[in-house]
Amino acid sequence: MTLEARREIETADVIVGYKTYVKLVESIAKPSTEVFSGIMGKEVERAKAAVAKALQGKHVVVISSGDPGVYGMAGVVLEVADLSAKVPIQIVPGVTAATAASALLGAPLVSDFAVISLSDLMTPWDVIEKRLNAAAEANFVVVLYNPQSEGRKEPLAKAYQILLKYRKPETPVGVVKQVGRKGEEAKITTLGELFGCEVDMATTIVVGNSTTRIVGKRMVTPRGYDL
Amino acid sequence: MTLEARREIETADVIVGYKTYVKLVESIAKPSTEVFSGIMGKEVERAKAAVAKALQGKHVVVISSGDPGVYGMAGVVLEVADLSAKVPIQIVPGVTAATAASALLGAPLVSDFAVISLSDLMTPWDVIEKRLNAAAEANFVVVLYNPQSEGRKEPLAKAYQILLKYRKPETPVGVVKQVGRKGEEAKITTLGELFGCEVDMATTIVVGNSTTRIVGKRMVTPRGYDL
Repeated sequence: MTLEARREIETADVIVGYKTYVKLVESIAKPSTEVFSGIMGKEVERAKAAVAKALQGKHVVVISSGDPGVYGMAGVVLEVADLSAKVPIQIVPGVTAATAASALLGAPLVSDFAVISLSDLMTPWDVIEKRLNAAAEANFVVVLYNPQSEGRKEPLAKAYQILLKYRKPETPVGVVKQVGRKGEEAKITTLGELFGCEVDMATTIVVGNSTTRIVGKRMVTPRGYDL
Repeated sequence: MTLEARREIETADVIVGYKTYVKLVESIAKPSTEVFSGIMGKEVERAKAAVAKALQGKHVVVISSGDPGVYGMAGVVLEVADLSAKVPIQIVPGVTAATAASALLGAPLVSDFAVISLSDLMTPWDVIEKRLNAAAEANFVVVLYNPQSEGRKEPLAKAYQILLKYRKPETPVGVVKQVGRKGEEAKITTLGELFGCEVDMATTIVVGNSTTRIVGKRMVTPRGYDL
């Protein structure tokens, strides 16, 4: 968490967020802070509640995990606010899972990278597929968000097949669960072995490019310095 | 700055970093903390100094701006440490310019995005060109780091031409200077108008995808929620 995010939570009149995330920050807030927590999938409802409270003159803090601008609440809050009257909105950036996971793995992102969500709830699968192909072919390090859930296993299986068209099975891959939270777990494997790994919605996967290698026990994409 | 980064700096025996960044954090450190600052381009030298001090048993903190794993010092420190004896190394993630700049602009990254450095000092231009084409064609939001410096103006001119092959001139583009530092300045323009903007090494450029639009006065890539 950043110092700036902490300051906002400490001074909030109202906190709005997905219930799992709200629980993580409640202890920082004032005892008088009102909490509006909601369930996954009710993002628009939470954004509307936040804007309504802000229109009453309250200091409302909407919580996202990681960075609120990366598949987070920032966009929907701005869109909802634009529909109603105007309230001043400030987006507080955070540490997104791509870089938090990479810090545990080593330094896989010290080169160009692409961030792709495998959730096809909001983005049609053919768009995701095109992006996977483009990123893999152009030798980007690829970071996968929302790789799979209980009811959605096919996208990750398809992603493996696409990545293996362009990258060797020995390519280092990092699999990080619950990054920055209780139960955090980082593992380095290879693209060929990835299919056997346990993966869920809260897993971040970092697939190396053709130059990524294991240094000590970490995953590093060399920037090209002459040592 | 994250709480974790602040804690590390406060307890450091030695701080190592590019002089501009060291100046930004010196006031947080203990008065007894030793400082080793260096110039741009001497990354390997700084990494070696840090590892040498760590081998003496000191708590050494190597400073990067943004996230140390995104074009930062994390990789070279791991590589240098691997050459010599082993020292325990922890990478502390941070807020990278892509998301810090996006927070000022609105919410342009609430969809898949690609991060590309236009510096051809370490990466051959044909690789960068291939990545620009791939990212633009697959409709990624594109974040450009190190867009140009005094002596290096050609890459950005070429990048404009590539992006304009795939995106309309009306595509929203954010130009952020000195993000998170004194003199921070964010401006929203369009791809067609971008060529006239003042841009330097400390500028971050965020190029929207085909769905990115202006909401209020901010740049938003809609996630696709039904409002």
